[in-house]
Amino acid sequence: MLARDLVEDHPSVDIGSDALEAARLLGEYHLPGLVVTADGGRPVAVLPASQVVRFVIPDYVRDDPPLARVLNEKTADRIATELAGRTVADMLADRPTGLPVLHASDTLLELAALMARLRSPLVAIVEDSRLLGVVTAARLLALALRPT
Amino acid sequence: MLARDLVEDHPSVDIGSDALEAARLLGEYHLPGLVVTADGGRPVAVLPASQVVRFVIPDYVRDDPPLARVLNEKTADRIATELAGRTVADMLADRPTGLPVLHASDTLLELAALMARLRSPLVAIVEDSRLLGVVTAARLLALALRPT
Repeated sequence: MLARDLVEDHPSVDIGSDALEAARLLGEYHLPGLVVTADGGRPVAVLPASQVVRFVIPDYVRDDPPLARVLNEKTADRIATELAGRTVADMLADRPTGLPVLHASDTLLELAALMARLRSPLVAIVEDSRLLGVVTAARLLALALRPT
Repeated sequence: MLARDLVEDHPSVDIGSDALEAARLLGEYHLPGLVVTADGGRPVAVLPASQVVRFVIPDYVRDDPPLARVLNEKTADRIATELAGRTVADMLADRPTGLPVLHASDTLLELAALMARLRSPLVAIVEDSRLLGVVTAARLLALALRPT
């Protein structure tokens, strides 16, 4: 089984896109993460949903997490505004390096090894520098464990 | 908005369960992770799908990742057997500490702060020590960004 046999269609965002647009895409399609592209479609990063969540949190709470406990419900709901004016590039800024991208001809085992090493919820699959789609950890498990 | 307004039903596994069963559940329901319970239902950990992927990789590849590159396709497909005889507890062994569990009365902001700090794809929600379900990062974004 090769990456091209496992790949799924998946929305991607350009690195210059609005942060709010990326967050809405994750929520709408219930995705574990988004592939970030640059230069007309080349994948340059994977942005996990949990990282986007980091950016909906107001700065003063990010600096002092216990504050989240003492704010009332109404104040705690006002979080989406933190994304306004930011781009996808801003949300990637403090991500560790290591790009979860493989080629369509790479094997299931290479996919698994990369996903595990980077602790990434998905790997982007390219062919001729074009993004074909992604393989999520859940899909990899489903196909790897399928009775043969 | 409180955790109980965001919670979704979600399968969980007992910490003593078979590793293969947990992996199948992740694949079948296309989940970013599973809640692990003990003592009759108390959540004790969240097992991300990418961590389970780590355990379908043969030991000799985990010890020497570049090996994945040189194995042929047929050999690379034979990965599921690595889970045989292991339990969910075995897969949790080397996870970092920090338990993504909150109470039904905790706020959206507390959820976001915990999810971001632990880089967890989901948080388990409890009420009276009973697991109500989970909130995924994607669902949190969908609800936080919903027009009001």
